[in-house]
Amino acid sequence: MPMAMNRALSIRSSRRDRENTGGRHRFSISTFRGIQAPELSRRLSRLIKSENNAIGAYEAAGRERSSIAAQLSDWGESTEDDAVSDISDKLGVMLAEIGEQEDVYAQNLEDSRGVLKHIRNMEASVQPSREQRQKVTDEIAKLKYKDPNSTRITTLEHELVRAEAQNLVAEAQLSNTTRTKLKEAYDIQLAATIERAEKQIILARHARRLLNYIDDSPLVPGDARAGYEHEVEARQVLEDAEADLRAWESTVEPVTSAARGASVSEQGEGASLINGGDSMVNDVPPAAKQMEEPQSAKAEAEPVPY
Amino acid sequence: MPMAMNRALSIRSSRRDRENTGGRHRFSISTFRGIQAPELSRRLSRLIKSENNAIGAYEAAGRERSSIAAQLSDWGESTEDDAVSDISDKLGVMLAEIGEQEDVYAQNLEDSRGVLKHIRNMEASVQPSREQRQKVTDEIAKLKYKDPNSTRITTLEHELVRAEAQNLVAEAQLSNTTRTKLKEAYDIQLAATIERAEKQIILARHARRLLNYIDDSPLVPGDARAGYEHEVEARQVLEDAEADLRAWESTVEPVTSAARGASVSEQGEGASLINGGDSMVNDVPPAAKQMEEPQSAKAEAEPVPY
Repeated sequence: MPMAMNRALSIRSSRRDRENTGGRHRFSISTFRGIQAPELSRRLSRLIKSENNAIGAYEAAGRERSSIAAQLSDWGESTEDDAVSDISDKLGVMLAEIGEQEDVYAQNLEDSRGVLKHIRNMEASVQPSREQRQKVTDEIAKLKYKDPNSTRITTLEHELVRAEAQNLVAEAQLSNTTRTKLKEAYDIQLAATIERAEKQIILARHARRLLNYIDDSPLVPGDARAGYEHEVEARQVLEDAEADLRAWESTVEPVTSAARGASVSEQGEGASLINGGDSMVNDVPPAAKQMEEPQSAKAEAEPVPY
Repeated sequence: MPMAMNRALSIRSSRRDRENTGGRHRFSISTFRGIQAPELSRRLSRLIKSENNAIGAYEAAGRERSSIAAQLSDWGESTEDDAVSDISDKLGVMLAEIGEQEDVYAQNLEDSRGVLKHIRNMEASVQPSREQRQKVTDEIAKLKYKDPNSTRITTLEHELVRAEAQNLVAEAQLSNTTRTKLKEAYDIQLAATIERAEKQIILARHARRLLNYIDDSPLVPGDARAGYEHEVEARQVLEDAEADLRAWESTVEPVTSAARGASVSEQGEGASLINGGDSMVNDVPPAAKQMEEPQSAKAEAEPVPY
């Protein structure tokens, strides 16, 4: 099946579509939660919600696969055909493990989704900073028109410089968080996609060997099948698959990150990194507090930790 | 994550579990349909129903992935960050294609499921043949006890021979169909698992390259980002992915089949084979009709076509 990516070097919706965001998304009670989110974080809030649906779908697929695997084995036994019984049972073990990989994948997607929440939270926290700056600017303009000699103008101008400084920091934090966490989230997600794929290939290739142990030469009515003699070989297939899975190692090229140093996917499961080492993301760094005098709003701060 | 296949060289449920079949299966109206199916085909009917649930889960995953891909691109545009905007859009294209592969996979699972239905139908059609033989046997025994000189006994004995001959053919057909179609169904399913995996690896590996075009070096408040200069390279990534997908070829070892000759998965998409060339599966072959005289019930028939 040839890929039709040619027609889509971009997936961006037209502006008209975008007005009612969400694509195939339908309204429901929980949708309104998204609408209550601050404007700036609304799109990502919805995406994170959709990601949750995708994760649920993979979990369901994993559950069904396990259930089907057990049913296949039980059906095979009920046929009272030694070959079908043994192979359906072994095939069931392999299919259950393929299903287990869907579940591991869902967990990794959940980790990736957790990383996106950092961006959403940052967006939500930057919104009031933008609004505060705008509010003070508006107040000064109003006062200068109504009461140009008011001493409150000077106070407000001091306040504006502080608001601007705070907002500059917030915007830098937003940019840093957005770029770093976007890379991290999809680093995890794509590495997980590759891991699931490579492990399922191992399992499926070995599982195909099992099928060859069922002799399906046409039977003449009244004749009996030759005895089944592949039990040891079939068992060996499971052991080979297990050994190959154990020996599996990730071979993905690390994603470079100036902020993080190493690729998350290089460091193994990734999950442990999500809550680690970035507690300053949502804090206003000390730099913002040094600028309480009306002076150049250009911060002389250190780079904002992401 | 090490595989725990060791604990499971078999996935067969204990007899106790098997009494209430279906595992995590819950009762619903449609469950009762399974119960109404002939005893012999009940297990496989349920398995086919569960497989439908699994297919639905993969379809849902594919849909969500496409929706998320579009949302990611739109969010990226809204950040007004050139790098994030371009990469999120291109990443969206790749994620949508990964989602498309889930959908192709679901279609292939549906083909595999269609092949299992041949076995279920054969099981359902063999059941009356077994019952008929038993019924005639019981009638003869009853009559021999009640009215040993009845001429109907001879008639019934003729009928029994015919019933036995028909049943022998039916059982041979069942064995042939079960073995051939079991191999064929899982040949398709496992080849599809490998195809999805290989294509998603291509897509995910290229998609990871995109992430490297986002510079996430920490920004100092008030500083602007350097201009984004990777648009051409990012576009090239999509073209590379498309070229690799186009060049993809299946490398699975064919599953051998004495009945079918070649492996289904070797012959391409597989779907077209499902309704082809096996119209005799559910027909009673001519052999059964030749044996209307009470003689050895051992059929001198040709091998039953699967």
